[in-house]
Amino acid sequence: MEDELITQLAAIVGPEAVLSKYEDLVTYECDGYVIQRGVPRAVVFPSTTEEVSAVVKCLSAQNVPFIPRGAGTGLSGGAIPLGGEVIISLVRMRKLLEVDFENRRAVVQPGFVNLKLSNAVAHRGYYYAPDPSSQRTCTIGGNVAENAGGAHCLKYGVTTNHVLGLELVLPDGEVVDIGGVPDVPGYDLVGILTGSEGTMGIVTKMTVRLLKKPEQVQTVLAQFDRVEDASRAVSDIIAAGIIPAALEMMDEIAIEGVEAGNYPVGYPKGLGAVLLIEVDGIAAGIEDQIRQIIDVCKRRNVREVKAASDEAERTRWWNNRKQAFGAMGTLSPDYLVQDGVIPRSRLPEVLERITAISRKYGLRIANVFHAGDGNLHPLILFDSRVPGETEKAVQAGSDVLQVCADVGGSITGEHGVGIEKREEMTYIFSREEIDLQLKVRDVFNPHNLCNPDKIFPSPSRCVEVRRASG
Amino acid sequence: MEDELITQLAAIVGPEAVLSKYEDLVTYECDGYVIQRGVPRAVVFPSTTEEVSAVVKCLSAQNVPFIPRGAGTGLSGGAIPLGGEVIISLVRMRKLLEVDFENRRAVVQPGFVNLKLSNAVAHRGYYYAPDPSSQRTCTIGGNVAENAGGAHCLKYGVTTNHVLGLELVLPDGEVVDIGGVPDVPGYDLVGILTGSEGTMGIVTKMTVRLLKKPEQVQTVLAQFDRVEDASRAVSDIIAAGIIPAALEMMDEIAIEGVEAGNYPVGYPKGLGAVLLIEVDGIAAGIEDQIRQIIDVCKRRNVREVKAASDEAERTRWWNNRKQAFGAMGTLSPDYLVQDGVIPRSRLPEVLERITAISRKYGLRIANVFHAGDGNLHPLILFDSRVPGETEKAVQAGSDVLQVCADVGGSITGEHGVGIEKREEMTYIFSREEIDLQLKVRDVFNPHNLCNPDKIFPSPSRCVEVRRASG
Repeated sequence: MEDELITQLAAIVGPEAVLSKYEDLVTYECDGYVIQRGVPRAVVFPSTTEEVSAVVKCLSAQNVPFIPRGAGTGLSGGAIPLGGEVIISLVRMRKLLEVDFENRRAVVQPGFVNLKLSNAVAHRGYYYAPDPSSQRTCTIGGNVAENAGGAHCLKYGVTTNHVLGLELVLPDGEVVDIGGVPDVPGYDLVGILTGSEGTMGIVTKMTVRLLKKPEQVQTVLAQFDRVEDASRAVSDIIAAGIIPAALEMMDEIAIEGVEAGNYPVGYPKGLGAVLLIEVDGIAAGIEDQIRQIIDVCKRRNVREVKAASDEAERTRWWNNRKQAFGAMGTLSPDYLVQDGVIPRSRLPEVLERITAISRKYGLRIANVFHAGDGNLHPLILFDSRVPGETEKAVQAGSDVLQVCADVGGSITGEHGVGIEKREEMTYIFSREEIDLQLKVRDVFNPHNLCNPDKIFPSPSRCVEVRRASG
Repeated sequence: MEDELITQLAAIVGPEAVLSKYEDLVTYECDGYVIQRGVPRAVVFPSTTEEVSAVVKCLSAQNVPFIPRGAGTGLSGGAIPLGGEVIISLVRMRKLLEVDFENRRAVVQPGFVNLKLSNAVAHRGYYYAPDPSSQRTCTIGGNVAENAGGAHCLKYGVTTNHVLGLELVLPDGEVVDIGGVPDVPGYDLVGILTGSEGTMGIVTKMTVRLLKKPEQVQTVLAQFDRVEDASRAVSDIIAAGIIPAALEMMDEIAIEGVEAGNYPVGYPKGLGAVLLIEVDGIAAGIEDQIRQIIDVCKRRNVREVKAASDEAERTRWWNNRKQAFGAMGTLSPDYLVQDGVIPRSRLPEVLERITAISRKYGLRIANVFHAGDGNLHPLILFDSRVPGETEKAVQAGSDVLQVCADVGGSITGEHGVGIEKREEMTYIFSREEIDLQLKVRDVFNPHNLCNPDKIFPSPSRCVEVRRASG
């Protein structure tokens, strides 16, 4: 039976485009979420929509579950097999199919890497706005699945604000076009598919919005002794009516991490918080905003504040910030990235409660956030070799999300629910509200074959979860 | 049976909150779409979510279809009864429930009038961005149902970009909360409900985004001899990287109409096109953008171009533009507003094809557009007293939408599909794609009781349509 399926898949995509040996499959047992693993039954690499459709038809006819996968950079385990699913990797479908500068649109295949799109249109002064930290490797297909954000989504919105149309292979293999015209009439199916984490079908083509690069960009770096002052400066900047392109914050432990990483800025020891504030737009307006931002920081007891003196300095600051997750490896053998959202006004209170959680579990927690959006990324440092510490880190992460939900926030800003936060969905939704979402999934994916058992807590299902050995 | 139902409804909302006499019901036989009419079986005015839920439970238990209705300003017939439905009017639910300035949110009931929200938060420098021309009377509940736009949605997005959460009474009477936290996890149900034209349930509470008023606003008025030059100026402004807050255009016949209306500006006779271009933001950046815009217009053979010299002049220009639909009454006894969308680059070509349609049917067509978005509002002038002319106007409108679809556009930008454009949905979608949408509707509204037979062409259903007698 196993061999028969592999033979059938190989007949569709070619034998070199199917992996089925254990040693090849282990590479695909997790994605950017490292707490849980699961070996897929096979990995298939289709090259065309027709091949995706044929593969899906073959699998669904035999009731074999499957998972679409991009670059595998997802942080909530959305691409991790839970029960020997077949992985449909979209990395061979990586063409830029069309660029329409006049109407500011591009059509790409799902395996096209995020940053490559901005690079491909830069010569005409355009770019693709969503910029997750993993943008050098993550794919736009994965971005659509997770409704990915990035440092600049404060001003420009997350992926859903930039997707105009999708070609979708439904879990029964049928190919449908969703959207792709401006202002699609009827229901917003593009919107519901974006962020559906691969549970409604496999996107094989997407039309996305291109933006004109702003005439000028300027960045301010503000160093604070106290994280409370930095939080208040964030609120003050927004209250002043400025919408920065990005408004990033790191706390003391995060600063310690990035300074030990590959791109140190030279922050003084013991600094309480750093804000990185970027404004962009028409050149004439920039200087005025920068002056206002610097004034706000000064009123909030900033220790040092300055605008980047040149592009090199600005790049240095951003490289330092963008390596934040990876740099935690210098502080701890393991770390878990959380992704909560809170109303901006509750920032100081939530930070205190995170500190209490850190104390309770005896684990250090570094905080890196898209502060303007209230999107927190607590990085929970742990050592998986110490028995019980992985479980403690997972529990601490869940406690942080409970705090976010308590103050009227959310359990995910941009990393998705995946397998990581399925139980935490109950912090936000009643059973009825979850059931309504499941019914919408059933319209697209009635047999739960496409990325099964992700996103939703499934009390009625007994899912075998293999924990990492550590 | 009829009386029994009225008695039951009166028991829920009180007898003074139910209309059932023919002379009271005729007021509700159409909305802003005047081509078709239908008398409701009754009109109910609930005052609370509990009353809405009880009314809906009562109706659905007896398989009686119903229609939610706001101010009745909709332009595609979404609130028109097709088969004696009960209308559930939400005008008594018009409270502003909560304003949270710090997190920039307000919670309103569905009958709350659009402009009142901006007025209620103006003292702290905030406003609610979506601004349909009917904003003095239309309700936010209706705006959510239609995903309403407005002159300023070029920069700020349509209603869906401003709705954070909804309380929804499902068509079986169950009350659910959808969203309401920042970055809702799971599927974007708020997104799919917004613009669902009342076919998925009745929204009884909504959390919307407030924006800080821009520091400065400036408006440019540009008068062109030729509409082609105006179209090209639109493309040039966008290509220059400027995102105006609004970019409105009127053609020769539209100008003739507004000049004959209550707010004439004094445009010269025979002018080919007018552009109204508004920029907003940080004061320091405005002047520069205004200069660029004026330069672009000059390069495109503008006859006269100037920035508003004061707020009074700016208001005069906007009043003139905002009355455009109503002012058509000065040119013609009847007019039909269409609402198509095209890729901006196809504007000159589409205008030519609209002129050809005008000639074919012997009807004048005035064009008013949100030009920056490619959202056209052709106003088809006709006289319903002339036999056959109403039908001609409807057919001309449909032909215009076919042109929009042909060039890769859409059949509605902001007015919805309603009953008006159900058949034109096939210009955009295949039968399979429509069926997928119907299946999504069935999740919420399985018995098609809530605003039945709107949006979708229903070949299998025999809907009796009563044409206006004219």
